[in-house]
Amino acid sequence: MKMNDLIEIIDKKLDEYLKISYPQKIFKSMKYTVLLPGKRLRPVMCLEAARLFGADIEDALPTACAVEMLHSQTLIHDDLPCMDNDDYRRGKLTNHKVFGEAMAVLAGDALLTFAPQIILKNSKNLDREKLLKIMEEYFQAAGAYGVIAGQVMDIEAEKIYSAAALYDAEEKFNKDDEELLHFIHLHKTSDLFKLALRTGAIIGGADDKGLSALTKFGEKLGIAFQIADDILDETSTFETMGKTLGKDKAAGKLTYISLYGLEKARADLNALIDKCFEILSENGLQSEIFENILNKIRKC
Amino acid sequence: MKMNDLIEIIDKKLDEYLKISYPQKIFKSMKYTVLLPGKRLRPVMCLEAARLFGADIEDALPTACAVEMLHSQTLIHDDLPCMDNDDYRRGKLTNHKVFGEAMAVLAGDALLTFAPQIILKNSKNLDREKLLKIMEEYFQAAGAYGVIAGQVMDIEAEKIYSAAALYDAEEKFNKDDEELLHFIHLHKTSDLFKLALRTGAIIGGADDKGLSALTKFGEKLGIAFQIADDILDETSTFETMGKTLGKDKAAGKLTYISLYGLEKARADLNALIDKCFEILSENGLQSEIFENILNKIRKC
Repeated sequence: MKMNDLIEIIDKKLDEYLKISYPQKIFKSMKYTVLLPGKRLRPVMCLEAARLFGADIEDALPTACAVEMLHSQTLIHDDLPCMDNDDYRRGKLTNHKVFGEAMAVLAGDALLTFAPQIILKNSKNLDREKLLKIMEEYFQAAGAYGVIAGQVMDIEAEKIYSAAALYDAEEKFNKDDEELLHFIHLHKTSDLFKLALRTGAIIGGADDKGLSALTKFGEKLGIAFQIADDILDETSTFETMGKTLGKDKAAGKLTYISLYGLEKARADLNALIDKCFEILSENGLQSEIFENILNKIRKC
Repeated sequence: MKMNDLIEIIDKKLDEYLKISYPQKIFKSMKYTVLLPGKRLRPVMCLEAARLFGADIEDALPTACAVEMLHSQTLIHDDLPCMDNDDYRRGKLTNHKVFGEAMAVLAGDALLTFAPQIILKNSKNLDREKLLKIMEEYFQAAGAYGVIAGQVMDIEAEKIYSAAALYDAEEKFNKDDEELLHFIHLHKTSDLFKLALRTGAIIGGADDKGLSALTKFGEKLGIAFQIADDILDETSTFETMGKTLGKDKAAGKLTYISLYGLEKARADLNALIDKCFEILSENGLQSEIFENILNKIRKC
């Protein structure tokens, strides 16, 4: 199946799963952000990983949609005034701008447990062992050892660098910064790609070798994606990206560009994408969809 | 075992489960609110339900602690400035007052998936079917069909009544208000008691009759607990309760007292506690611990 066909199937399912129930306001708020037009990279990758290991796409759809819901949850809370304080996301007003802060906090909370609930309710063909494995993967990626660890250190780094920028712009980047930035990207970005790929592979019944290959692939791809995002934050426009850009630079924030400069960022992005292609071919994972995604990230 | 022995076991386990990992700040923030001194009613009731249906307490401990973590999650987010904006909880500063708003949002988020992760990691003696049933119960209670539904309508009601109070204090209470208040209490308060009791019973292997009895018991007990809380909000002191009181009245909020008055509140509380005793005895559920809890709520 082509990328666009998969996106269509995912969007239809997300709409179906997020049926407006009582109290309507919370479901409308959840649905608003989840259904903002997006590239659906994570659920597409989940479905593709499942297919590569022999699963029927139908069996991976609830999990793919759950990963997208979790991704939306992180966006809703990251955009809050007490975090990144963003007004726009994918060209539309952010959740708290439409529904208010209280509802945005609650919509994020609700998605965190709605997503795995969708998996349990709708994955009729998966056995109990697979379901429990998927739950474990989900909790690990969603929680304090996963995306939240990344977001926490992102916030902490911002505080350090805003303060450091005031008195010593030269000294502020060192070896520790490299490790810190790597940690942030690994958790804030790679963990969700890894979740998508690993759960898809589990549904397909992948062995340890297959899982480990997709884990490495997800890690590298996530970091490449984040470098591309940092590059676009410097070089793109609001109209193209649908969100306010240049805020990172203005805030003196630790990013791939502030640490290494644009030229090295582009070179490292290229090397990571090459590495991703290598992992796929070394492990016999032939996927036009993965190749398309990698090429798009490279060309950011 | 006596109530105090159970509380001690629970506190020890909560401390053990919430080991400070990297990034330390998020784990410290999670641990701070979970370990505030409390009555531990929900985890105690989970352990007691498990015991009543023949389970070893050890096997229910991870689930009991998870329910307390979920309860703490709701407290952290309910106390946020964009929600109830409370500075004190159990006599101590609220989470966002100590760790800042961003970290309080993230600590709540983290607890939502840390809690079920604790169940999966530590319930070695539970079979897969029971684990999946417990997951389903957890997602149902924690999400938009459970406590969040209650919190959403509580916030919505507050808006309606603050506005209504401005122009028509006489007209503002009617039959719909009764249903609305019942809905709020049923979800905001009863759902967590029901979760504690039902998961405990599932661990013990209760049949449908046993589960249904505990469901009714949890519903009534939750509403009784909430009425007691509303009464104490009117009649107690900051020193006794450890939180700011009288805010509900000042805000013209919909509470059991504002709707029915103190006298009827006390009478209904008594009737509900009687009903709880009746459910226990009708179903052969003999429990000194449940009786103690009921008597304490009655005497509020």
